[in-house]
Amino acid sequence: MRAVDIIAKKRDGEALSAEEIRYFVEGLTHDTIPDYQVAAWAMAVLLRGMTPQETIALTMAMVRSGEVLDLSRVGPRVVDKHSTGGVGDKTTLVVAPLVAAAGLPVAKMSGRGLGYSGGTLDKLESIPGYRVSLSLEEFFQTVERCGVVVAGQTAELAPADGKLYALRDVTGTVPSLPLIASSIMSKKIAAGAQALVLDVKVGRGAFMATIEDARALAEMMIRIGEGVGRRVTAVLSDMSQPLGRAVGNALEVREAIDTLRGTGPDDLAEHCLVIASEMLVLGGLAETAAEARERLSGVLAGGQAFAKFREWIAAQGGDLSVIDDPASLPRAPCLRVMRSPRTGYLERLDAREVGLTAVDLGAGRQRKGEAIDHAVGVVLGPKVGDLIREGEELCAVHARDESSAQAAEGRLLRAYAWSELPVLPPPLIHDILRGSQGTVRQSHWG
Amino acid sequence: MRAVDIIAKKRDGEALSAEEIRYFVEGLTHDTIPDYQVAAWAMAVLLRGMTPQETIALTMAMVRSGEVLDLSRVGPRVVDKHSTGGVGDKTTLVVAPLVAAAGLPVAKMSGRGLGYSGGTLDKLESIPGYRVSLSLEEFFQTVERCGVVVAGQTAELAPADGKLYALRDVTGTVPSLPLIASSIMSKKIAAGAQALVLDVKVGRGAFMATIEDARALAEMMIRIGEGVGRRVTAVLSDMSQPLGRAVGNALEVREAIDTLRGTGPDDLAEHCLVIASEMLVLGGLAETAAEARERLSGVLAGGQAFAKFREWIAAQGGDLSVIDDPASLPRAPCLRVMRSPRTGYLERLDAREVGLTAVDLGAGRQRKGEAIDHAVGVVLGPKVGDLIREGEELCAVHARDESSAQAAEGRLLRAYAWSELPVLPPPLIHDILRGSQGTVRQSHWG
Repeated sequence: MRAVDIIAKKRDGEALSAEEIRYFVEGLTHDTIPDYQVAAWAMAVLLRGMTPQETIALTMAMVRSGEVLDLSRVGPRVVDKHSTGGVGDKTTLVVAPLVAAAGLPVAKMSGRGLGYSGGTLDKLESIPGYRVSLSLEEFFQTVERCGVVVAGQTAELAPADGKLYALRDVTGTVPSLPLIASSIMSKKIAAGAQALVLDVKVGRGAFMATIEDARALAEMMIRIGEGVGRRVTAVLSDMSQPLGRAVGNALEVREAIDTLRGTGPDDLAEHCLVIASEMLVLGGLAETAAEARERLSGVLAGGQAFAKFREWIAAQGGDLSVIDDPASLPRAPCLRVMRSPRTGYLERLDAREVGLTAVDLGAGRQRKGEAIDHAVGVVLGPKVGDLIREGEELCAVHARDESSAQAAEGRLLRAYAWSELPVLPPPLIHDILRGSQGTVRQSHWG
Repeated sequence: MRAVDIIAKKRDGEALSAEEIRYFVEGLTHDTIPDYQVAAWAMAVLLRGMTPQETIALTMAMVRSGEVLDLSRVGPRVVDKHSTGGVGDKTTLVVAPLVAAAGLPVAKMSGRGLGYSGGTLDKLESIPGYRVSLSLEEFFQTVERCGVVVAGQTAELAPADGKLYALRDVTGTVPSLPLIASSIMSKKIAAGAQALVLDVKVGRGAFMATIEDARALAEMMIRIGEGVGRRVTAVLSDMSQPLGRAVGNALEVREAIDTLRGTGPDDLAEHCLVIASEMLVLGGLAETAAEARERLSGVLAGGQAFAKFREWIAAQGGDLSVIDDPASLPRAPCLRVMRSPRTGYLERLDAREVGLTAVDLGAGRQRKGEAIDHAVGVVLGPKVGDLIREGEELCAVHARDESSAQAAEGRLLRAYAWSELPVLPPPLIHDILRGSQGTVRQSHWG
């Protein structure tokens, strides 16, 4: 087998065999196939597409390129949750203890933020003492003891995916649905997921800008998961405006705590209930989403979810005093309230611009490995559809200094648009695709 | 400007600006753009195509990546000739002295053989003493003294093309018409050609298998040439069977000598007259191809072409005794005559198989830089359309030893097919495209 023949076959639009894909992925993992051949292949895949069979073979070849976690110690059916990334998305912080409190253990590996999209590990690290780096043994002990663990990668999962992604990033080959889908699914399968709820974000603050693209990606991931015996549900959720009101690490932890205590923003609470319900159904703890939701609402209202959150944070070394008094979380020295320059219905609140403003303030990173400021960020007031009058509070900027606060204000103003006429808020959830309902229609993926 | 943005633009099917193409070619020349980005770009170009403007910009950017020869010392309009490569193609050996004897100087840089396709430098080196490596000054002195010079590259011409080609070779990105056309044209323009006759081969022994592909490539090269002020004529010539009868370096030199003396195979003589006539027209020494042909026929019959050949070979250090007694050219120790296993009209004589047999015998190389055996090769008897009877001579194998001769026989037999019914020989020349006649029809090249 020669790499150049495999590239030429894909270039000519033919489907590769599982053996050819395995050969290629092994070659890229062990550097026996040079980067320039991988790059040419990735471009051919992007422009020619892949069949479901090819995409499944690629996913599993990447899974097998590294260690695969066995979570059978944790429970009979471990349900993972993955968000494709967005602005103000603190869902995991709420959903993990909520689901665990309802009886489904959560053993999860999360990532860091990059660009306008935040990361769960960064958020958790704004809690003093919280340890994201656990040994594999600590990882298992934590979930066995308290039913929840959220850490960074404890093992080298799908290293082929890491290498391929780094190369795609610099060769214009990121926006390929089969490559995106296999990248996400390979990491989740390697992390031991037997079932998976995908939170596929749609809109300006998401990787997928349109419902159609988001649906295609979701269907592809469901098909991959089912192709290798995993149950997958995809929730298509709105990311045209940020989720909740807080954007920025400590600010989002505070909002998650509020939500677990029943005083968080409605949209975040609703979103978390939808995701958690689907997890409970996949985990076999409820027959229907409605049944799951009722149970979860009880666990939330009864305080067990918040209790589980405290238990989990403490188990990973976090300082409970800041959980009990969120005002003592890291706070930015400079707070500026922005007021609405006009009266009208909010028509637009661009999630991407808000996310990029938070990055400018120091809450996120442009490049991997950069340091971040846990305290800074933005807290939104009214959201799309709300009526606001001139001079009322639009949002608040939490900044390290006056000059960055000023710059943030300028950028944020461009994120907003007003309308004279009433505006309908966007739906929070666009659709829910459940694997067994046969949602996959395409036979070739481009 | 960033390489990844240029890749993404081409990936999305947009036309690149001349500035973007220049930036990319400079980056690949100076290694500031890494191979993996060039490879992804090349695949995007292959699958998305290029406009004529882009292809012209690419050609000129590659020309400017190295030195550009100024042949104005040689004459007011220097006409070059380029063959896209084939089997038994010794045209330059005949045409260069023929055209020079008619008054048009030829200052030509040639290449070596690779794969089934032979190379003029390899053929010339079977003449003892012939020097292909000349200094630039020697190159000019030779053509000024005797009107002909044929050497290897005396300067670093279009180094970007060399680098890009090496990368295309291992990334499945060779078969892109805009990339092939710009590669050929950049080397020819850098070598100083003001006008150019392209011998575009068609058929099993050529890079272009069909007339349509050959025509598309020819039209593209004409358009590139005219786009930068060069006159270009393309001759689409047959390469379904080898040209002439000899395949192998010294054997081809001998056939070229025979042709210059008027005793060579008809097809080779005719082909050389067609190419030489077009060169004379482009060089302004004849109004029409017919007028040029009459003059060239006289020069050939009168012995001036052969005299010019001797003068040229001597000027580059070649031993004239082997020219005057071709039997003293390198000779293989083992000669085997193959006889026809049946009676019939020859229906097929596969040029590629014959070329690969010659490579197996040692006449060519699989990889750049390999040593070759100048003596070995194949001499064909009857050609397609000829009637041959069982037991009559089919061809002769000139080999280094018995075992390679035997292997060659087995392979050659598969190159032939016979028919009970009469067979028409393929046309020698499929078409002639003269630039000024507006032969270019496509606006986007894939």
